Amino acid sequence: MRYLEDFVAGQRIELAPITVQEPEIIEFATRFDPQAFHVDPGHPTTLSLGGVMASGWHTAALFMRMIVDAYLADTAVLTSPGVDELRWLHPVRPGDTLCGEVIVEQVRISESKPDRGLLSTRVVLHNQSDEAVFSVKTLAFVLRRPANELP
Amino acid sequence: MRYLEDFVAGQRIELAPITVQEPEIIEFATRFDPQAFHVDPGHPTTLSLGGVMASGWHTAALFMRMIVDAYLADTAVLTSPGVDELRWLHPVRPGDTLCGEVIVEQVRISESKPDRGLLSTRVVLHNQSDEAVFSVKTLAFVLRRPANELP
Repeated sequence: MRYLEDFVAGQRIELAPITVQEPEIIEFATRFDPQAFHVDPGHPTTLSLGGVMASGWHTAALFMRMIVDAYLADTAVLTSPGVDELRWLHPVRPGDTLCGEVIVEQVRISESKPDRGLLSTRVVLHNQSDEAVFSVKTLAFVLRRPANELP
Repeated sequence: MRYLEDFVAGQRIELAPITVQEPEIIEFATRFDPQAFHVDPGHPTTLSLGGVMASGWHTAALFMRMIVDAYLADTAVLTSPGVDELRWLHPVRPGDTLCGEVIVEQVRISESKPDRGLLSTRVVLHNQSDEAVFSVKTLAFVLRRPANELP
């Protein structure tokens, strides 16, 4: 298990690639973001925008899966207060493969609750053509290593 | 169809309530955010946090559906550059009913592309106990009304 002490500013964590296909894009958007350019490949608006693109919230959800698989599942995370400066920089299209890395920006011990701290990261996802498609700054409360547990 | 001219700073748009149940919470998180407190009701961590809670990205996706239903589906939206200050203020639990409103913060015509502008809003979602659970500032590019179309 990773604790707050296992993160240091400047640390980079690589994310395993993930590929997204048209049926998933349409299924997600039909449920959560049913705008023509996410769900209807033949719609004039979709055609004028170069074809179906993933809902930005689908991209955000894929990003979450990538960071859970990369490190969150093995980290003593409590909750997250939120994210900042979330940007959709380029459309995510059917067949795109996303990859990226997390850069640790700050690790700060809580003053009011000394058993935990706040982990701040900056993340950018790229597609297979090395175009940046998504960026965000994340925040998470992470437990410090208990005194009786060795690193 | 609504265009940029149909939004003014201070305007409020009410969002229709949406209820989320445990099977959807677990299904979404199994796919995108498989942390114990989102997918495993009996896990010690889940129990220590008061039971299963929705992935924050599930709440964000539900918020998107609420604003598509309330006004985006009938608005000449192009794309969104992103969102700012996204906050998960309180856990969203199985059976919770979310409601909220959008407040228009700014409507600004693009200098480089005069056929469109940037719509900035501020949104807060509450649960059935009137606890704020989610807030975010959104940005969207919206077309201005074409000269040949009457309001």
